[in-house]
Amino acid sequence: MSPIDHFWAVIPAGGAGTRLWPLSRSSVPKFLHDLTGSGRTLLQGTVDRLSTVAEDRFLVVTGRPHRDAVLGQLPGVAPERVLAEPSPRDSMAAIGLAAAVLEREDPEAVMGSFAADHVIPDPEVFADCVRIAADVARDDWLVTLGIEPAFPSSAFGYVHLGDPLAGHPGAFAVREFVEKPSVRTAAEYLATGDYRWNAGMFIVRPTVLLDLLGRWHPAFAASLRAIAADPSRLDDLWTDLPRIALDHAVAEPAADAGRVVCVPSAFRWEDIGDFDALAGLVGDAGRPTVLGDDDLVRAIDASGLVVPAAGRLVAVIGLDDVVVVDTPDALLVTTRARAQDVKQVVQRLKESGRAELT
Amino acid sequence: MSPIDHFWAVIPAGGAGTRLWPLSRSSVPKFLHDLTGSGRTLLQGTVDRLSTVAEDRFLVVTGRPHRDAVLGQLPGVAPERVLAEPSPRDSMAAIGLAAAVLEREDPEAVMGSFAADHVIPDPEVFADCVRIAADVARDDWLVTLGIEPAFPSSAFGYVHLGDPLAGHPGAFAVREFVEKPSVRTAAEYLATGDYRWNAGMFIVRPTVLLDLLGRWHPAFAASLRAIAADPSRLDDLWTDLPRIALDHAVAEPAADAGRVVCVPSAFRWEDIGDFDALAGLVGDAGRPTVLGDDDLVRAIDASGLVVPAAGRLVAVIGLDDVVVVDTPDALLVTTRARAQDVKQVVQRLKESGRAELT
Repeated sequence: MSPIDHFWAVIPAGGAGTRLWPLSRSSVPKFLHDLTGSGRTLLQGTVDRLSTVAEDRFLVVTGRPHRDAVLGQLPGVAPERVLAEPSPRDSMAAIGLAAAVLEREDPEAVMGSFAADHVIPDPEVFADCVRIAADVARDDWLVTLGIEPAFPSSAFGYVHLGDPLAGHPGAFAVREFVEKPSVRTAAEYLATGDYRWNAGMFIVRPTVLLDLLGRWHPAFAASLRAIAADPSRLDDLWTDLPRIALDHAVAEPAADAGRVVCVPSAFRWEDIGDFDALAGLVGDAGRPTVLGDDDLVRAIDASGLVVPAAGRLVAVIGLDDVVVVDTPDALLVTTRARAQDVKQVVQRLKESGRAELT
Repeated sequence: MSPIDHFWAVIPAGGAGTRLWPLSRSSVPKFLHDLTGSGRTLLQGTVDRLSTVAEDRFLVVTGRPHRDAVLGQLPGVAPERVLAEPSPRDSMAAIGLAAAVLEREDPEAVMGSFAADHVIPDPEVFADCVRIAADVARDDWLVTLGIEPAFPSSAFGYVHLGDPLAGHPGAFAVREFVEKPSVRTAAEYLATGDYRWNAGMFIVRPTVLLDLLGRWHPAFAASLRAIAADPSRLDDLWTDLPRIALDHAVAEPAADAGRVVCVPSAFRWEDIGDFDALAGLVGDAGRPTVLGDDDLVRAIDASGLVVPAAGRLVAVIGLDDVVVVDTPDALLVTTRARAQDVKQVVQRLKESGRAELT
């Protein structure tokens, strides 16, 4: 497995992960946690996975409050490679800033953007897909990896594949990106064989990305390039950048314009959005999954997920699909079915003056 | 409400309360806890309730490891009034020792024995019953208070009432004590109107109790009297005392011999044996009962019992009749229906070398 020439891995490391409270906090968001019990945080796992293709060519874009933690977790990444956003401005600003920096630094760069909080258990298959995508991107396409759907999910957007791309085996034109469908519609998508999950992974030349952005949002692209040319203007220009996802700002209109290609991918992929997903990821039949020190958990007639992150003993009796997350200052007890509602607790804590716990 | 002349309150303070783990521990058993959120521990509540009839005439019998804690909780009780058992020997030895001490100290004594871990929300009604019972006891009866059954419980033994006792309005002969029945049998008992819950409360002259004991267990009674005569023999003689409950050693055979009287009582009485009972005692519809600081609990669509005894925030979502007990070094999550099985966890902890948590 050789690295890809001039390939840069861009990692937007943002998002609070409120549905993973109390493990994920605004001060220590989910990408800084080892949520899979692998011994590596999600951010570290993302860097590990990309090292085979990017070597040491990384750009991490994160919030200012998290920059030190990111640097602490990534001793192999130089401090100047961790860009700090003055405030959250969604994915287009984060990834666009990285593109503008790379455009100046390496004219031959191909960048791939991968969120810091995804889990991909098949790193070799993933690397092969990135390699194909990078080849395609050098021909000035905006390339996305399309995940083989494991089930008709209503939680993800989909990529609708068109014809094979000439000269690039394994790559297909993208007809359109479609928003999160109903489960029924998702099942229809799966039946056609022409739809893939949109995991928000984009491989593209920095200049191509910024030029596409400039086509629909010229001031946005100009601001990003101005910041890259003179980093002292970051605070000044950042405030006015639109809060918009890369999907909406560039990918969707570019697909309509026939500029997007998809590399359908067979690797497993998990977006750990809540404790139900986490329980499913590391699930174990007959007893609760333990994320952390198994010896701290005593379970009788129980299943679900137990996170003994406070180092205390946790005993669970007679509860199926329960979720118990034990941290030093806050405890969550719920069920897998109600995992989505965890964000309500976070909201209530903020409203009741306990924001320090969120 | 005047005190009862020469009435001594004997409080056997023993029992681990393993079904109330992790709140109750072998080092700090349940009678040392404020389980009702009243601001007083069960032991303190017991003493408070009896002060109106006993003034300062108390004898507490507890395990050696708990003597200091008992004294600390009861500043009004003199150190020589707290007897320490060298080892647990069940209720006959504990109450019998108190009887032997009182027999020497106060020839006119009437003693009443009341467990340290019961809850009686109607102290005035209780005191009235004790007053009647003490009057009867002066005529050399063994008197028990019979609780009006609130429902056909299979968790308690029953007292079967006979004819009214001449000269003592409100007192009845006891035909027999019956063991914990099935719910069906308990319902039949209730239908007759002649059965009461046996709460293990006995009022008796010390000499009468020891003489009754001597009738069926002469060596036992002799040992207790020998210890009272020479306290230096305590360790030596205690080891060989039988492990037997007062009910079996004295009350049941004495009932068969026609020596027991019951004062049927209308006060509410709770034996907080497990978290289901505790949830029922302080229950609140529509949201979980909180034992402790209500502000530490955030509940959404939940009911049951939450004990935030570690000072941490506890969030519960989407669980009915759940039991969450949060302590600094151990956490329990179960349901009211499985509250009995908490003792299994305690057993497993001992077996797995974590006895320090039990």
